Amino acid sequence: MLSEEERRRFTVVLVRARDPNNIGAVARAMYDFGFRDLRLVNEYSVPLERARSAIDASSVLEGAREFATVAEAVADCTLVVGTTAVGLRRMEHPLHSLAEAGPLLRAAGEGRAALLFGSEKTGLSNEELSHCHWLLTIPMHRTPGMRHPSMNLGQAAAVCLYELVRDPGASAPSQATAGATPKDATGQDLERLTQLLLAVMRASGYAERHPANFDETLVRRLVFQLGLDRSRALAWTGILRQILWRLTQP
Amino acid sequence: MLSEEERRRFTVVLVRARDPNNIGAVARAMYDFGFRDLRLVNEYSVPLERARSAIDASSVLEGAREFATVAEAVADCTLVVGTTAVGLRRMEHPLHSLAEAGPLLRAAGEGRAALLFGSEKTGLSNEELSHCHWLLTIPMHRTPGMRHPSMNLGQAAAVCLYELVRDPGASAPSQATAGATPKDATGQDLERLTQLLLAVMRASGYAERHPANFDETLVRRLVFQLGLDRSRALAWTGILRQILWRLTQP
Repeated sequence: MLSEEERRRFTVVLVRARDPNNIGAVARAMYDFGFRDLRLVNEYSVPLERARSAIDASSVLEGAREFATVAEAVADCTLVVGTTAVGLRRMEHPLHSLAEAGPLLRAAGEGRAALLFGSEKTGLSNEELSHCHWLLTIPMHRTPGMRHPSMNLGQAAAVCLYELVRDPGASAPSQATAGATPKDATGQDLERLTQLLLAVMRASGYAERHPANFDETLVRRLVFQLGLDRSRALAWTGILRQILWRLTQP
Repeated sequence: MLSEEERRRFTVVLVRARDPNNIGAVARAMYDFGFRDLRLVNEYSVPLERARSAIDASSVLEGAREFATVAEAVADCTLVVGTTAVGLRRMEHPLHSLAEAGPLLRAAGEGRAALLFGSEKTGLSNEELSHCHWLLTIPMHRTPGMRHPSMNLGQAAAVCLYELVRDPGASAPSQATAGATPKDATGQDLERLTQLLLAVMRASGYAERHPANFDETLVRRLVFQLGLDRSRALAWTGILRQILWRLTQP
């Protein structure tokens, strides 16, 4: 997981994004993954006010800055990475899949790194791409004969930022809060359950109807394969006890 | 990269999603990453027509199916995975980070695997979670004092599906062992078992004596935790059927 300080190193630059919903969605993804620095490049001012209504993302949008050119937007960045659909690439930039790009971006040193997203319709122009050190592409699926997929801007940003914070080493948090580690059932617990189940099979007529299945070894195996911890073994014991009691009532 | 056939194994289930824009965004992420099978669970019909206008995603939405309950939506699935914000988890499900979940989902065998997404406001309810084998969580960022982040549905789906297609190395299917591997129980198998067990609890007087334990969600969880493969699920079904038959004899 990236530290707070490492997240601060990253900047998202939206070039010619005009739909406030998309800008809001990008801001929300940034908020969700802990990124702050959003920059917009547009020839004229976008309706940032409308985008600012995006839930949860206001702190990101409030700090968003507008620039007239890509050059100005990435002026303080030591690494500029463009996002692109492979098919649209026209310049000879090094190209990395997003999964490859994550480690490269994280390892990029102390300077500021910018992720550039172009407009949904046209992507990044050659001029805009020329500000990039290299490109990354999200692995989209192509079906022959189908229209080339292009990702929604908010979703593309979410996927890229997820890759940045993705940490295969870290296990899911708060596993410990689920309570103490379950205690394993003892052999005695499982044997009691096995004998109860055999008794229930007998009392219910199952043994008589399915004699091939009524075999102590098979039934014990059936119980062991349940992989019960102690508390669940006791729960099942309680259920079977009640069933047996009712079955053997006169 | 997952093969076409492997992608077909995956289903996305949206539970109580009502905003056509969100449904459209999920469909679009599915389209972008090559997934097809979208299912919706809603008490009343959602305006699917409006969602169908989503660009590029029409082939996914055209095939989308609506179900009245989670149980029906996952009836043919052998693995059901719920998505959750960690803070909202109330039941003792195994929890995996998304990065851990990807390989587990890809390696899940030949059956159908469902990814469940709850409503944005409330996530998945305990009853809905009880249909899940385990949960996955997207690693979101928390800033002290800030509102707990909750991802936009379309972005959450995009990130999860990206993780599924992400790792080229890990997608190698275990074709060699597929024949010998026991078949996983389907959602329908497990639901039948849950309902039978509830009936037996009622008929045996267990429900009356232990009302706190006689809770459909708890009982479903008890059944899921058994980790039954298909043949064992059927064996237990046979045993419970006989017990129920005997208990309800006049």
